[in-house]
Amino acid sequence: MIKRKNKTIKFIALGGVGEIGKNMYLVEVDGDILIVDAGLMFPEEEMLGIDMVIPDLTYLRDNKDRVKAVFLTHGHEDHIGALSYVLRQVNVPVYGTKLTLALAAAKLKEQEFNGNANFIEVTSDTVVELDSVNVSFFRTNHSIPDSVGVCIHTSEGIIVYTGDFKFDQAATKLYKPEIGKMAAIGDQGVLCLISDSTEAEKPGYTTSEAIVERELSNAFYNAPGRIIAACFASDINRIQHIFDVAKDNGRKVAVVGKSLERIYHIALDMGYLEVAEDLIIPIHELKNYQDREIVVLATGTQGEPIEALQKMAKQTHKQLNIQSGDTVLIAASPLKGSEVFLFKTVDMLFRAGANVISGKRTIHVSSHGSQEELKFMINLMQPKFFIPVHGEYRMLKAHRKVALECGLTDEKIMIPDRGDVLEWKDGKLALAGKVPSGNVLIDGIGVGDVGNIVLRDRRLLSQDGILIVVVTLTKQDKKIAAGPEIISRGFVYVRESEKLMDDSTKLVRDIVDRTIAKGSFEWASLKQEIRDELNRYLFEKTKRRPMILPIIMEV
Amino acid sequence: MIKRKNKTIKFIALGGVGEIGKNMYLVEVDGDILIVDAGLMFPEEEMLGIDMVIPDLTYLRDNKDRVKAVFLTHGHEDHIGALSYVLRQVNVPVYGTKLTLALAAAKLKEQEFNGNANFIEVTSDTVVELDSVNVSFFRTNHSIPDSVGVCIHTSEGIIVYTGDFKFDQAATKLYKPEIGKMAAIGDQGVLCLISDSTEAEKPGYTTSEAIVERELSNAFYNAPGRIIAACFASDINRIQHIFDVAKDNGRKVAVVGKSLERIYHIALDMGYLEVAEDLIIPIHELKNYQDREIVVLATGTQGEPIEALQKMAKQTHKQLNIQSGDTVLIAASPLKGSEVFLFKTVDMLFRAGANVISGKRTIHVSSHGSQEELKFMINLMQPKFFIPVHGEYRMLKAHRKVALECGLTDEKIMIPDRGDVLEWKDGKLALAGKVPSGNVLIDGIGVGDVGNIVLRDRRLLSQDGILIVVVTLTKQDKKIAAGPEIISRGFVYVRESEKLMDDSTKLVRDIVDRTIAKGSFEWASLKQEIRDELNRYLFEKTKRRPMILPIIMEV
Repeated sequence: MIKRKNKTIKFIALGGVGEIGKNMYLVEVDGDILIVDAGLMFPEEEMLGIDMVIPDLTYLRDNKDRVKAVFLTHGHEDHIGALSYVLRQVNVPVYGTKLTLALAAAKLKEQEFNGNANFIEVTSDTVVELDSVNVSFFRTNHSIPDSVGVCIHTSEGIIVYTGDFKFDQAATKLYKPEIGKMAAIGDQGVLCLISDSTEAEKPGYTTSEAIVERELSNAFYNAPGRIIAACFASDINRIQHIFDVAKDNGRKVAVVGKSLERIYHIALDMGYLEVAEDLIIPIHELKNYQDREIVVLATGTQGEPIEALQKMAKQTHKQLNIQSGDTVLIAASPLKGSEVFLFKTVDMLFRAGANVISGKRTIHVSSHGSQEELKFMINLMQPKFFIPVHGEYRMLKAHRKVALECGLTDEKIMIPDRGDVLEWKDGKLALAGKVPSGNVLIDGIGVGDVGNIVLRDRRLLSQDGILIVVVTLTKQDKKIAAGPEIISRGFVYVRESEKLMDDSTKLVRDIVDRTIAKGSFEWASLKQEIRDELNRYLFEKTKRRPMILPIIMEV
Repeated sequence: MIKRKNKTIKFIALGGVGEIGKNMYLVEVDGDILIVDAGLMFPEEEMLGIDMVIPDLTYLRDNKDRVKAVFLTHGHEDHIGALSYVLRQVNVPVYGTKLTLALAAAKLKEQEFNGNANFIEVTSDTVVELDSVNVSFFRTNHSIPDSVGVCIHTSEGIIVYTGDFKFDQAATKLYKPEIGKMAAIGDQGVLCLISDSTEAEKPGYTTSEAIVERELSNAFYNAPGRIIAACFASDINRIQHIFDVAKDNGRKVAVVGKSLERIYHIALDMGYLEVAEDLIIPIHELKNYQDREIVVLATGTQGEPIEALQKMAKQTHKQLNIQSGDTVLIAASPLKGSEVFLFKTVDMLFRAGANVISGKRTIHVSSHGSQEELKFMINLMQPKFFIPVHGEYRMLKAHRKVALECGLTDEKIMIPDRGDVLEWKDGKLALAGKVPSGNVLIDGIGVGDVGNIVLRDRRLLSQDGILIVVVTLTKQDKKIAAGPEIISRGFVYVRESEKLMDDSTKLVRDIVDRTIAKGSFEWASLKQEIRDELNRYLFEKTKRRPMILPIIMEV
C-alpha cells in the first residue's frame, strides 16, 4: 500500500480540538495536504445573531496548490458543514461513502454553493491513490450509517483517523464496524491514531442501542394513547428504532418537522432506513386511527424537535397538538446551553396533560464510545503515537489518560492546540510551527465580517438598547435648524417615559447651544460631550446605560 | 394557640409555583393578609438586560389595609430579594430570625430602600399574636443557619409552610432541625402542609454534608499545592466545611470575592461561621506561606465564583492567578443555563495547569430534601391538605406523587397556578378566584417598565443590529437639505462594507426623490417605504435583517 518513501509527515487540527464541532484535520505528506472532514460548529451563546462557525481557512487558501483532496468520514454537520466554504477556496476531489456524499451534496445546495464539486464515492474497500500516499477506509459504528475511519498509508506507518465511533455489540447490519479490518490495520503498523474524545470522561461502555430499543418498546407498550417521539434527524439509528418499535406495537408513524426533509428523506430514499410498507402515513390520516395506533415522530436539527414539542404543548403547532393521555418520548439529549429550554418544554407538556419520558439514559444513549471502547480502539490499532481530537480540552486530557492506561507513554501522546503543526521527525513527534486558526463567524452571506466590534455592539444593544440623538445645524451661522430629536429602541417604554425624553432633549439642546456660543468647535468633541452627559443623566435616572448615538447634520 | 373561630381561610401563591425563585405566598385569614417570604427570581436567558424579576404586587397594593405582616423563613435572595418592593407598597412589620433579618436589612440597603422598615426579630420559640391568628416557628435544616418554617394557627388547624429544608443526620448545631417540635405540631392538627418541591424528582435521601466534608478533606489532603475553592456565598454551611477542613489540614484561608462581603461578613460577624483564630489571612499575606499551607476561597452570588475562577485561569484576576500544581474545587452546582460557562472555565483551568475537582455529587450536595425527606416531613405533619410549592411544574407534580405515596388522597392535594386563590370551605379546598400575578421585570431603577415591546427590540437588536437612516428635508419646497446619512451598529463591519453603505444611501435618496416628485406625501408612508425597500435590499445582499430606523427632519 505504500506509494514511496515519504520525507515529511505533518498533522494540523484546524478545528475540533479544545471544542465540540468544527472537525477539520490536515495531514501533510511530502507537502501534499489532505483534508480530513470539514465541519461547522453551532454558535456559542455570546455569538449573538451568528448562524454558524467554521475554521479559519487562511492556511488552505495560501497553500491552494498543495491541497490534494478532502475525505469525509460521515454525514453529520460537525464533519461536513464547512465543505462549501472549503471548496470555494480549493476545488479538489471530495471522497466519501454514498450516504455521506448525498448529505454533503444537500448541504452544498442549502449553502448555495454554485461551483462544481467533484464528488468521488468510495466504499470501505476502496483505495484512493494519490501521488504521495494511498488512502483506505474502515467501517465504524456510529448513529448514522456509512460512517468510516480513514487510513493514510505513509512509509513510516499508517495514520488512522477514527471519525466518530463506538462499539455497540447490538449494532445491526448498516451500523456494524469492521473490527477484523481494524485489527489488520493495527498489525500492518500504525504510526499514529487520531481518535474521537467526546465521551473520554465516561468510564465503562456506552449503553447499547439494544437497551434503548427495549426501553422504547416498554414505553410504547405502556402508553395509553398517542405517542409523540422527538429525536434529532441526524440520529438515523434512533429513527430506525422508533420505526421498528412502532411496527412491533401495531402503530403507524406520521412524521412532522421541516429540516427533517433533507436528512430523513435522503436516508429513506437511499435505503438507509428500513421501513415496512404502510408503516408511514401522512399526518392528515391520523384521524383514521385510534390513539393507541399512532406514533408522531418530531424531528429536525438543533433545537427543532424540542421547539416542535413546545408548540404542540402551547397548542400552536400547525399539524398536531398535545392532548390529555399523550405520551411524549424525548429520545435526544439537550444541546449544551439549551437545557433550560428543554425543562420549560417538559413543564408545558405536563401541563398540557401529557406524560413525558425524558432525560433517561435508557431512551437516549451517546453515539460516541466511552473509555473501555476508546481502549478497544487503541488496542486494535496498537499505534506508535496518539493524538486525541474531537473534544473540549478536559475530554482530550481524559483521553490522554485512557491512552496512558493502554500502555502508551507520555512522549508518544500529544494534545494539539488549534493550528499547531505537529511533525514526525527522527522517530519523534514535535511541535514544528503554527498556522492561522480560529473561529470564522458566518452571519447570513457574510463570512468572517462579523468580528469583535460587531458582536460587542450587539451585546451592548441587547442589554439596554439604543438612544439616537439627531440634530441639524445650519452650515453658515451654526444654529440649530431642526431637532434635537431623540429616538430610542430597547431602552424604556417610551409612552411611559415622556418626561425622561423631554428632559433629555432639553439637555442636548443646552449642550449644543453652549458649544455653539463658544464659537469654533469640533464635531467629534460635541458628539462626545452629548454622549457623556446623556450617559450620566440617564444612568442617574434609570440605572441603565443604553448605547448613545449622536448624529449631527448640516444644511 | 387559636385566637378565635376563623371564618375564611385562603391561600395564594404570588410566585414560586411553576418556577424556581420568587417565593411569595399569602395566607388570608378572616381577610387579614399574611405574606410569607418575598423573594426574587434571577432573569431567564431571554430577558435581555434585566437585573431581576419580582412577583406582581398589584393585589397587595389594592388591598393595602388588609396586609398585616411579612414573615421571612431564611436569608436567601429567592426568599427575601423582593422585600424592598413589597415594603414600598405596604409598610408592615417584618418578622424573621436574627441572621435572616440582618441579611434582609443589607438587601434593603443594596436596593436603596429609604423608608422605615419595622423589623421584629423572632426565635423559633416566639409566638407572634395577630388579630385573627397566632404565628409560630420551627427550626429547619438548610444550607444557611437560622432557617425556620412558619405555622399559622387557624381554628381549622395549623397551616404549615416549611420554607427550604432537608433532613441531614449530620447537621451540626446551627443547622439542626427541631424534629420533636415538628412532630408536636403534627399532633396538634395540621390543616395544610405547604412544602418545598425543589428535589421532589430525586429518589432517596440527599447526600449528607458529612460526605461532603469527608471528600473535601480527601481532596485537601491529596492536593500537592495551593487549593482554590469556589462556592456560593449563600451556602454558609459549605463555607463552614471549607474552614473546618482547612484547619484540620493545617492550611490558612484567604478570601476573595466582592458580593461575598455582605453575606459572608454578616455571617462571620454575627457568629454564624465558626472560625478558629488566625485561620483567615489577608490575601497579600499568602506569599508568607508554602503552597501546601494555602486555601483561597472564591465566593459570591450567582455566577461570581465561577467568573473569578475564569479570570484566575486567564491570568487576569487582580488578586490571584492559577499556577501549575493548583487544585481547584468547585463546590457549587452551576445555575441553570450556565453549564456551558462552567465547562469553559474548567477547560481554561486545566489549560492553566490546575487540577480541577468539579461536578461530583460528593463535594456539592443539594440544600433541599429528596423524596424520602419530603415523605418524612409529610409524616411528621400528618396534614389534612397538601400544597406543593417552590418548584417548576414537573417538580410540583413529582411532589404530589410523593404525597400520594404517603397516603394523602387526590382531592386533598392541590397544585396551584400563580395567582390562584385557594379557599377552604366545608372541609374542602377549592379554587375561589384569581388575582393578578406574573413577572415584574426590574431593570435598573425601573420596575415593570420593561415589557414585551422593549424586550422584543432588545432581541432584534442583538441578532442583526440596527441601521439608522437620517434625512433632512426643507419644509417649504420639500427638497433634501441634508443626508441621507446611514449609520449602523451591530450589523456589518462598516470599514469593509463601504459599497453596501453607499448603495443603501443611493437607494434611500432615490426613494425620497421619487416620493417628493409625486407631490403630496405622508411621512409615515415614506418611512415605511424606506424600511421595506432597504430591508429587501439588505437581506438580498447580506441575508441579515437589521432593525431599520428612518428619521426624517424638517428645516
